Amino acid sequence: MGERAPAALAGPAHEALTSGGKRLRPLLLVLCARIGEPERGDLLRAATAIEVLHTATLIHDDIVDKAENRRGAPTTVARYGREAAIATGDYLFAEAFSELAEIGDPRLVRAFSEASEGLAAGELEQYRADGATVDVEAYLEHIRKKTAGLFKAACVAGGTLGGLTLRQIDLLATYGQALGIAFQMSDDIMDLVGKPGLMGKGIGTDLAEGTVTLPVIFALREGDARTIRKVLAAPNPSPELLEAGIETVLATDAVAKTEAWARGEIDAALEGLGLLPDCPEREFLEVIASEVVGRDA
Amino acid sequence: MGERAPAALAGPAHEALTSGGKRLRPLLLVLCARIGEPERGDLLRAATAIEVLHTATLIHDDIVDKAENRRGAPTTVARYGREAAIATGDYLFAEAFSELAEIGDPRLVRAFSEASEGLAAGELEQYRADGATVDVEAYLEHIRKKTAGLFKAACVAGGTLGGLTLRQIDLLATYGQALGIAFQMSDDIMDLVGKPGLMGKGIGTDLAEGTVTLPVIFALREGDARTIRKVLAAPNPSPELLEAGIETVLATDAVAKTEAWARGEIDAALEGLGLLPDCPEREFLEVIASEVVGRDA
Repeated sequence: MGERAPAALAGPAHEALTSGGKRLRPLLLVLCARIGEPERGDLLRAATAIEVLHTATLIHDDIVDKAENRRGAPTTVARYGREAAIATGDYLFAEAFSELAEIGDPRLVRAFSEASEGLAAGELEQYRADGATVDVEAYLEHIRKKTAGLFKAACVAGGTLGGLTLRQIDLLATYGQALGIAFQMSDDIMDLVGKPGLMGKGIGTDLAEGTVTLPVIFALREGDARTIRKVLAAPNPSPELLEAGIETVLATDAVAKTEAWARGEIDAALEGLGLLPDCPEREFLEVIASEVVGRDA
Repeated sequence: MGERAPAALAGPAHEALTSGGKRLRPLLLVLCARIGEPERGDLLRAATAIEVLHTATLIHDDIVDKAENRRGAPTTVARYGREAAIATGDYLFAEAFSELAEIGDPRLVRAFSEASEGLAAGELEQYRADGATVDVEAYLEHIRKKTAGLFKAACVAGGTLGGLTLRQIDLLATYGQALGIAFQMSDDIMDLVGKPGLMGKGIGTDLAEGTVTLPVIFALREGDARTIRKVLAAPNPSPELLEAGIETVLATDAVAKTEAWARGEIDAALEGLGLLPDCPEREFLEVIASEVVGRDA
């Protein structure tokens, strides 16, 4: 962006873009592209575009979720208000497609716009879901759109720019989608057990917000469903109630089941990679997949 | 959209798309395209895309403006809430670019994404502007982004699909931009004097919302600026105060000056058209331009 961004938007947009995410999506895109032979300028544009699109989504999500902090800093909506946050997200969304227009390959526009449609659909479902209605199938459908779609788009865009074959791009799409699903499940677990390597339990943000994650779905079937539903239904559960809810989930084998599922996704992701040319980038993609279940460790 | 839209979004999105606008942007796109020889399927996709993009913008604008009605029906935000309105706008935005991806011409993606960047920037400025700071230059800059940009994109996309020369597409871009500016000025006037052919004065919505339009800028210079500023500054001006504000503007030659400016824009729009091939579509574009100043008559 930079030179074209209007002054009023440049501040919030720049802050949101530089607030220090893990840049996992551009990394995936670049690695997938370098399995083949991408054009350098196009690669940089596409990597920028996917991070810009991701950031646009986070800004709008934070409005919907009324989130005040992200990555240790105030969210755009908390700092600049709802109107500015809507406009900043819209601007970055347009900016992502401007970058793609420069590259000029309609397959990238398709990958990004399909992922964006899924993200918008997931954005809406997010706050509609409640404990009474979410089952495993609905959960999977939701995270396919809300998380895995952009991972998949990153890999498809990368493979396309690298000039890979359709079959190879399909393998990368499968990898990206499975990785994204495992990534989300790992996130769900960390909400309950805390980050690996850190002391103490998770903070139960999902539970407190009434978000039904996969371990919670499992626990609802096997544990004290009444307590869990009570936490999910409370608009602002007390620390004691939240603690009881976390304990209830952890008393079941819900976390172990979720980990097993995530590992199954990772296995699926790795299987396809094995059919790609043996190169350092493929190895890096394998490492990323292996680390997702124990990520941030 | 239709078959791909998720159920939760299909309702609000469909309602917003079918609520009966004038479809001016797709009309411009189609007319410009048919000066040349567009491919039929692509033309339909692009015409859909520009109306979908326009609708996405209106939905987000209505959140920012807290608008309750549009075209005589409740806005998406009024009917479904802010979260659903953000997601519905995002979805339609993505949907517009999906349509463009099907066409596969990066020049269309560029035209649309540039217009979208301008729209987002204008979205933010809208509620920042106040009587103290807006001058004619800032006003023009704002309506270029907020209104004229999408008119221009419609004409550029149409000309591109029609296979016109770069020079011809430039002429259409100039036409679209000037038409958009005149369109907005005409809107500004109607807010004060009412729609042609209808009895009574305008309803002063812009004034009541603190929006500084071109006639208001002129009137601030020539008339009783204190009264006008009082209306602009009031969060909810009384009917008497609003009436006094309208009267104050109408007591100057602000409306006549704005009309003259709009006519100048129309002249510029028509001048370029004269250099295009003589055909029924060009004639239709000329008629549209001529009617803008007295539109809805």
